[in-house]
Amino acid sequence: MTDQPADSGEDRLIARYFAPLATHPGAFGLADDAAAIAPPPGCDLVLKADAIVGGIHFFENNPADAVAQKALRVNLSDLAAKGAVPLGFLLSLALPQGVSENWLAAFASGLKADIEQFNCPLFGGDTVKSPGAVMISIAAFGSVPHGTMVKRGGAKVGDRIVVTGTIGDAALGLKLRQDSDAAARWKLDDAARQHLAQRYLVPQPRSAIAEILRTHASGAMDLSDGLAGDLTKMCRAAGVSADIDVGQVPLSAGALAALAAEPVLIEPILTGGDDYEIAAAIPPARLAAFDAAAKAAGVAVADIGVVTTGSDAPKFVWNGRQLNFARRSFSHF
Amino acid sequence: MTDQPADSGEDRLIARYFAPLATHPGAFGLADDAAAIAPPPGCDLVLKADAIVGGIHFFENNPADAVAQKALRVNLSDLAAKGAVPLGFLLSLALPQGVSENWLAAFASGLKADIEQFNCPLFGGDTVKSPGAVMISIAAFGSVPHGTMVKRGGAKVGDRIVVTGTIGDAALGLKLRQDSDAAARWKLDDAARQHLAQRYLVPQPRSAIAEILRTHASGAMDLSDGLAGDLTKMCRAAGVSADIDVGQVPLSAGALAALAAEPVLIEPILTGGDDYEIAAAIPPARLAAFDAAAKAAGVAVADIGVVTTGSDAPKFVWNGRQLNFARRSFSHF
Repeated sequence: MTDQPADSGEDRLIARYFAPLATHPGAFGLADDAAAIAPPPGCDLVLKADAIVGGIHFFENNPADAVAQKALRVNLSDLAAKGAVPLGFLLSLALPQGVSENWLAAFASGLKADIEQFNCPLFGGDTVKSPGAVMISIAAFGSVPHGTMVKRGGAKVGDRIVVTGTIGDAALGLKLRQDSDAAARWKLDDAARQHLAQRYLVPQPRSAIAEILRTHASGAMDLSDGLAGDLTKMCRAAGVSADIDVGQVPLSAGALAALAAEPVLIEPILTGGDDYEIAAAIPPARLAAFDAAAKAAGVAVADIGVVTTGSDAPKFVWNGRQLNFARRSFSHF
Repeated sequence: MTDQPADSGEDRLIARYFAPLATHPGAFGLADDAAAIAPPPGCDLVLKADAIVGGIHFFENNPADAVAQKALRVNLSDLAAKGAVPLGFLLSLALPQGVSENWLAAFASGLKADIEQFNCPLFGGDTVKSPGAVMISIAAFGSVPHGTMVKRGGAKVGDRIVVTGTIGDAALGLKLRQDSDAAARWKLDDAARQHLAQRYLVPQPRSAIAEILRTHASGAMDLSDGLAGDLTKMCRAAGVSADIDVGQVPLSAGALAALAAEPVLIEPILTGGDDYEIAAAIPPARLAAFDAAAKAAGVAVADIGVVTTGSDAPKFVWNGRQLNFARRSFSHF
């Protein structure tokens, strides 16, 4: 035959950058049309899909390895909040014409590091052309023993509300990208500035406490659209309300500095989104055990309030005053 | 509280258009952060993700119900070729600002019809803003008894190569959209013109023969990037070659008319892609039983050639002459 080989540019791209990531035997090295995975016996599959889009969820000039990691980690964060252990993921990647080999190599390298760190292999996916922005859609799979997925709506009156890590860093990190004077105004040192910027760039999914949540939490969800709005959703799903002591909301040194300089930042801190921390409702009798287990797993947790009766949105009280928010959470529409 | 409700525009969009489609109990009416599905015991999960993008895979002015169905069906086509019965899917939808309620209602309505027709419920997903084109990424899940997924690379020397349906219709349907004189030049009647246009608009996944393929096929794949290129991939994966009798490739009345008017159309017919038919390798001893079972399931199949030894790309012989193609298959890159 004198015609061209069957390998298209797309095939070569997949073979070069993505096949090496598909180490699970059921992924067939991405050389078949689908993956075939034997699910763990007695388990439910926990399924989640989340997409991120260039110019919307990340800046087009963000490092490609960080973009890849954000795309995977926003899904791993959901799996962790549901108490699920990662099994693997499918990747759909829409790329504009002319994306460089360097970008692709960095993207694949970021993904590889996370596949190893979170033990979450690539099962398959596809690569298509985008007329504009880079778009990355990931469908992630986890497992829990049958019937034990941690529900969004499980909180009971009297449960303590806890959150992992620190809140608001990513929202402030985004502001630093958008406002070049902010770092000086907020009197941030280099370490604080870099911390906030990094928290926006790459989330830290709390996979280490997935099984601890399954053991202790009445309900949980990951915080992607802002603490205030996400807690409102969590309470509504359970038919409860909550009292939140804003003074107990854990803040990083950078967030504390920024807030001291501009107290109005309390609103983006509590509503800005991109935290990828976990909020959970923990029965008071389990709180000490939960705290100890989370600490042992290397994840800081803070008790920020209590689940109450009623159908009002959670009350956020700061310095004796109830906060009203212009908008409780981030929304695309 | 005097601030806005927690329901964002995104929440309302999901509640209005997509929650009614999430009828599987494990989807929790899209009111949790993930789905929890008990996989069928003794089965492997067959996993596939495919995205379609406005301006690339479909025209932006295509009817939204057809766009939704194409997005789902390109995945169902893969599941069918692998012998898998659909379990459900996750949907990632990136929408430009200002998409109309009418568009969304039609999109959801098209999806609902296919969910019912193919018994493939919506498990979850997400909706994000796109800076430009509509992008739809679907991750579809099917099941097969453990270890029985039909492989791309299973063909054996001597197997017959069969294809379902008719080949090349969608490639010609695309040409009709791009060239307003083509219908007249090809002397198409209205029915033929509409048939070709519709075949481009909405694929017909051959889900009805999934289990028949599992019973009889040595190997199979769905035809998405053109018969010539996809058969080349199928043969290469099996370490074999093939002789294809182009005269036996099944063509619709519209494709036959177009080909009679312009014999050069044989190339886009065989390489144009978007067929979403299935090519399978069937041992000769099983061919009669396969044919009968496919016929009983309402799917036309045609024997177009034979698997041979060697590592050359399959030979396509038409009217005694071996065809050379400028490009064997569609590629995004």
